[in-house]
Amino acid sequence: MSEPQWLTAEERRAWLALWAVFFKLPGMLDSELNRLAKITVFDYHVLAILSEQPDRRLSMSDLAAKTSSSLSRLSHVVKKLEGREWVARCTSTVDARVTVASLTDEGYRAVQDLAPPHVASARRLMFDQLDDDDVADLARVGRKIIAGLDANHWIFRDEGVRE
Amino acid sequence: MSEPQWLTAEERRAWLALWAVFFKLPGMLDSELNRLAKITVFDYHVLAILSEQPDRRLSMSDLAAKTSSSLSRLSHVVKKLEGREWVARCTSTVDARVTVASLTDEGYRAVQDLAPPHVASARRLMFDQLDDDDVADLARVGRKIIAGLDANHWIFRDEGVRE
Repeated sequence: MSEPQWLTAEERRAWLALWAVFFKLPGMLDSELNRLAKITVFDYHVLAILSEQPDRRLSMSDLAAKTSSSLSRLSHVVKKLEGREWVARCTSTVDARVTVASLTDEGYRAVQDLAPPHVASARRLMFDQLDDDDVADLARVGRKIIAGLDANHWIFRDEGVRE
Repeated sequence: MSEPQWLTAEERRAWLALWAVFFKLPGMLDSELNRLAKITVFDYHVLAILSEQPDRRLSMSDLAAKTSSSLSRLSHVVKKLEGREWVARCTSTVDARVTVASLTDEGYRAVQDLAPPHVASARRLMFDQLDDDDVADLARVGRKIIAGLDANHWIFRDEGVRE
């Protein structure tokens, strides 16, 4: 075994800052969405992705890819959202082996109602602290990290969807 | 209600990239640590923070602050690490109201054994894709975000500890 290549001081600063953001930001957004609608950021992400599809539906496997989620985690969340009557699951009319998740009208209204306070939270908790260079740098570095983890990640294919 | 200030295209790129990293990276590091030692990244973080203290101990409330964690989440994790005999809890000799978590010798050996493969994972999954400017930009932007969420965060006070 060769000597481990320990982090440099600057790498350590970046690593600790990233983990501090990981450990803080999602929880704060979760709290706000929980207070507003008893959902998590991940639930919101699922609803938002569905709302951006032309017919507001996606196969479960495509939805898993778009939310960087395992199918089992996604199934659990979709079941919860079905209980709210915001999402419905059905068998694809094209391929009976495929399960499709679709946003109901009620689910679509929920996303529309939640989007303004959610974007306000994103501004207050993050973007208000960042200038244009920071935003461009975060996008560039974040995309480099993702490219290393998953070169086929949908963020590289699908630039047109809105958040 | 004024019109929501929707994200710009570049803000949206940064936001989606950050969430893609959130949804991917911790799970991949979790898998590696789980395979090596049946622990999560968060567990490792708790052990690493304790190992960096001069006497390898911290009050539960300081440890919660250093891991950006709630006390209840931390208690759950520390209980699990006690079961491994890697951490022990005791009452402070200075203030009987304070519970102190300390790393056992076995826990210290575990961190020392896990640190080289963990830093190798961090390089492979993240730093190998980044140049010096990327690392500096990530540190700068991450610290700005944290400063907005918690101006007293320990990363601003405690620059000397190693990861």
